[in-house]
Amino acid sequence: MISTDFKITIVGLGLLGGSYASGLAKKGYKVKAIDINQEYLEHALANKWIVEGSDDPSLVSDADLVIFCLYPNTLVKWLNSYQNLLKPNALLTDVTGVKRSIMSKINGFLRTDVKFIYSHPMAGKEVSGALYSDSNIFKSANFIVIKDEDIQAMQTIKDLATILEFKNIVELDAKSHDEMIAFVSQLTHVIAVCLMNVSDNTHLKDYTGDSFRDLTRIAKINENLWYELFMQNKDMLLKEIDAFTRQLDHFKEVIINDDEEEMKRLFRQSSMRRKEFDKK
Amino acid sequence: MISTDFKITIVGLGLLGGSYASGLAKKGYKVKAIDINQEYLEHALANKWIVEGSDDPSLVSDADLVIFCLYPNTLVKWLNSYQNLLKPNALLTDVTGVKRSIMSKINGFLRTDVKFIYSHPMAGKEVSGALYSDSNIFKSANFIVIKDEDIQAMQTIKDLATILEFKNIVELDAKSHDEMIAFVSQLTHVIAVCLMNVSDNTHLKDYTGDSFRDLTRIAKINENLWYELFMQNKDMLLKEIDAFTRQLDHFKEVIINDDEEEMKRLFRQSSMRRKEFDKK
Repeated sequence: MISTDFKITIVGLGLLGGSYASGLAKKGYKVKAIDINQEYLEHALANKWIVEGSDDPSLVSDADLVIFCLYPNTLVKWLNSYQNLLKPNALLTDVTGVKRSIMSKINGFLRTDVKFIYSHPMAGKEVSGALYSDSNIFKSANFIVIKDEDIQAMQTIKDLATILEFKNIVELDAKSHDEMIAFVSQLTHVIAVCLMNVSDNTHLKDYTGDSFRDLTRIAKINENLWYELFMQNKDMLLKEIDAFTRQLDHFKEVIINDDEEEMKRLFRQSSMRRKEFDKK
Repeated sequence: MISTDFKITIVGLGLLGGSYASGLAKKGYKVKAIDINQEYLEHALANKWIVEGSDDPSLVSDADLVIFCLYPNTLVKWLNSYQNLLKPNALLTDVTGVKRSIMSKINGFLRTDVKFIYSHPMAGKEVSGALYSDSNIFKSANFIVIKDEDIQAMQTIKDLATILEFKNIVELDAKSHDEMIAFVSQLTHVIAVCLMNVSDNTHLKDYTGDSFRDLTRIAKINENLWYELFMQNKDMLLKEIDAFTRQLDHFKEVIINDDEEEMKRLFRQSSMRRKEFDKK
């Protein structure tokens, strides 16, 4: 396990950064945070999530572990600008929801005396900023660590996930991660957004039940973050949209043709598969 | 309000029929039920939801109010076969999720000395049968009553919904009902089913978060009921699928063209609309 003497700095004190800080503080770790938003820093200091906070990148210079909780493009730019401030042998990790694109960029310029183990905590809320941070969001969430040859460094990041009480810790390679995320997260967000955009159906709000609300909850979406996430996983996302569109076209044909047998087969298949997701 | 001396018979003791019986019994009403499933009748008798249960259609003959909790086609057939058993001046209602098709069929042969006020309780579970019945499902649900010139009969059915503690009671004409249901319920079920059918993604269950589970919960679907519901609202449902497909195609173009401005506009629009659905 990670010693509580380990110096940890979080770069980016948004919803996730604040939740990491809060979860680590609860377990006795002394955390520093870098953010340009003074209100977030003060909130984290007032709640004793962090022992020091600043907008000064040099706060990173004594850290054994740096956790980047930034948007994909900001992460790449930050590292490119300030990696000279990192302590030799520092271990780095992130929270980014796409992997291949940022990894190929960062690995192209990263100092060889530091180690980056990429990870993705699959947790969030439909709100942003440290004022909404809450480490309880990790208790029902999956933590994905991208496979690396440095087993020991990978283990430290898995230990971090254990400290933060993630429900489940899984290893994946970057491509499998991006493929999986294109289906389970990105395609579902595209669907929810398109469903809300079909027409102005807000007058229907008096008639909707839980299923419509459940299906569209994620249509409340952070436009800047998700634009980056979609663009950096364009190939995989387009593949998933195409596959889904083919299914939808097929279902439409089944309705038009009143194909009872095929419709019922599709219902049975979807029910059977979905039940698998209910199993613990 | 409906007097507790009012004789009520429920035809079809499935999930909804049993929940109606349970909710009415709680308020002191004496309910009879007709079903071919002996286990359901015994369950309802044992829980004192009903005072009498049988598979004999003639149990309907003393009822002032008959509530049909049957699948669409079964409802039409049952009435066609047994309407001679109904008491003169009996008030009838139903729970059917589609309206135009059953109404045009039933109104074509219904006895003129009985009155049918059509209604749709927008409540359910992903399980079926009276063993799962629970009148608490109505507390968060909308009750839709189809507009009729007989204001007094409509009021009695609204009173029924009040007794059953529905959250919200709304009047709609049959066409508006079917149009609304095509969007908020049927299209969402089509999407969930298609999403599960894209490929066998059950191996992804370890990586999915709440949003995927929320979006696909309704992919567990009763194949016989939903085949009927879709087929009897084919025109409206196909219109909604087409409109959704156009949105999806548009979003795909936006991704392909890396159209940042339009993607962010779509995100803002979906967020803004969806927030309306959170308001009480």
